Amino acid sequence: MGVVVNLGAADRKAHAALERITALVREDLEAVNQVILTNLQSRAPLIPQLAQHLIASGGKRLRPVLTLTSARMCGYKGMRHVGLAASVEFIHTATLLHDDVVDESALRRGEASANALWGNESSVLVGDFLFARAFRLMVADGSLKVLSILSDSASIIAEGEVMQLSTANEPETSEANYLDVVQAKTANLFAAACEIGAVLAERPQVEEEALRSYGLNLGTAFQLVDDVLDYSAQQATLGKTIGDDFREGKITLPIVLAFRRGNEDERAFWCRTVENLDQKEGDLERAIEIMTAREALADSIERARHYGSVARDALGIFPDGPEKAALADLVDFCIDRAY
Amino acid sequence: MGVVVNLGAADRKAHAALERITALVREDLEAVNQVILTNLQSRAPLIPQLAQHLIASGGKRLRPVLTLTSARMCGYKGMRHVGLAASVEFIHTATLLHDDVVDESALRRGEASANALWGNESSVLVGDFLFARAFRLMVADGSLKVLSILSDSASIIAEGEVMQLSTANEPETSEANYLDVVQAKTANLFAAACEIGAVLAERPQVEEEALRSYGLNLGTAFQLVDDVLDYSAQQATLGKTIGDDFREGKITLPIVLAFRRGNEDERAFWCRTVENLDQKEGDLERAIEIMTAREALADSIERARHYGSVARDALGIFPDGPEKAALADLVDFCIDRAY
Repeated sequence: MGVVVNLGAADRKAHAALERITALVREDLEAVNQVILTNLQSRAPLIPQLAQHLIASGGKRLRPVLTLTSARMCGYKGMRHVGLAASVEFIHTATLLHDDVVDESALRRGEASANALWGNESSVLVGDFLFARAFRLMVADGSLKVLSILSDSASIIAEGEVMQLSTANEPETSEANYLDVVQAKTANLFAAACEIGAVLAERPQVEEEALRSYGLNLGTAFQLVDDVLDYSAQQATLGKTIGDDFREGKITLPIVLAFRRGNEDERAFWCRTVENLDQKEGDLERAIEIMTAREALADSIERARHYGSVARDALGIFPDGPEKAALADLVDFCIDRAY
Repeated sequence: MGVVVNLGAADRKAHAALERITALVREDLEAVNQVILTNLQSRAPLIPQLAQHLIASGGKRLRPVLTLTSARMCGYKGMRHVGLAASVEFIHTATLLHDDVVDESALRRGEASANALWGNESSVLVGDFLFARAFRLMVADGSLKVLSILSDSASIIAEGEVMQLSTANEPETSEANYLDVVQAKTANLFAAACEIGAVLAERPQVEEEALRSYGLNLGTAFQLVDDVLDYSAQQATLGKTIGDDFREGKITLPIVLAFRRGNEDERAFWCRTVENLDQKEGDLERAIEIMTAREALADSIERARHYGSVARDALGIFPDGPEKAALADLVDFCIDRAY
């Protein structure tokens, strides 16, 4: 019980860090929300309906916050970061919509997913619409450099998603392969979101690269922890849904490590449950038990801490100030969320 | 029988027009094919596999041909039109992939569709990849004006697809509504493909507008005829699959007209078959019979002829030459294909 209480405290501290950075860019973020709403207007009423469901359903706006804070840390004084932050959020939301179709998810963050409510067709098409609108926002901004960063990113995300199809239900997936997918699917957009802050402020290349590295490593840590949270007893205690990845046979680092460290019995268990998706009552509990015994969950967090450290150090070249402090704190948020 | 033979001759004449325009830009088109192949390279082997299936499966490359021919007609001497034509084809192919997921089509042009062979997930994700690559190609070209035209187009296509969801299985759909969807989903990309030819050649706005109008009206005629072909006895004679739209309950102009002109019995037939999708042996034949009696097929072709005439006249301001003649002939191709 003592452990649960401590983790709860870490979680509260983590969320306080998120609240601080959000407060720091509150005005800009409200402008982003306005741009998002304006750009969801359409002759097809389903578009604002469905997109609002997703955009209103508890998203943390983490990626727009990264763009806004990075730009301000670099001394950017204008308002172009608002449209670009909205564009980044649209790319992210489009990816989520298409992801749910691919995973056939009925739930997202414990709530009914868009495809469960409106059907796969709508999720595919509204995702396409958001993606196209993201590009329109970038084109309206008019920076070819930003367009290049974000169109590369969109292409790499899609490539990562396709690569993930081939690791699905394959417990023998290597850690390197898993990491490739995480960086392509998730961390890359974090990197782009941060990098464009330096581009807007017309900072030298070394600062662009530093922000890209911060974002890439932060995003990697974020996804690693996210994948651990899906097996977290603490999350279950907080009333959150766990085990989604397990039920889908999605191969994340906890399984990769547990499988490689496991004995013959355990490997047979993983093959039955996540490869053949032959699951029964109690299997999720058994999965968590094996992961705990093999220290697969704790070591996944350790890996995340490594990327978190690299992210924090990448910020070193920037002068101290509230934005830099907030970005550093965000590393703690990504790692210390309840697990 | 005499009629069938005549129509066969019209079809041969139509395809000869397509061959002529393709021959006119053959070298450029080969360069487009090369750019397409290069841009399908990916760390995820599924991407070239699946995309090649689609790109190799009998596409006419109509949209790239429009960009290439428009640019040359406008006196453009460079090679930027090649990358942009490839970009247009990528947007088109991405749309096809996502369309098949939405329609749950097992067949496309009588061949197994990508989603039937590789699953919906792959179609969604490879579509996203192609879409992102299309933008990368435009960004590499570097014209914000072209980026603006094509990102607007992508956004309108997605909007049209979503609008189409709400007319699905609704035989009371109005002709205006049907036309909105056709222009958004299909004709808009034809318009953009043509317009960028004038933009590349830095021609005055009136020529950009003329080419946009040509493309929009050509694309509208093309889709109207395409929708008629799905009910064409002539197509069936040629061994092509017909009735796909009918089986899905997709509402196209032949149904819109037949429903509005129909008596009570006929309307009940349309409600049963395309609204409730309660279909039995012989229903497709009965649908064609009603459409023929109500002149719904012939009049859909008449509507197409109207748009074809507008397209042809839009070319009027350009000086005579082989490109202009080929674009004018393409109107005949779009209308006189076997029906």
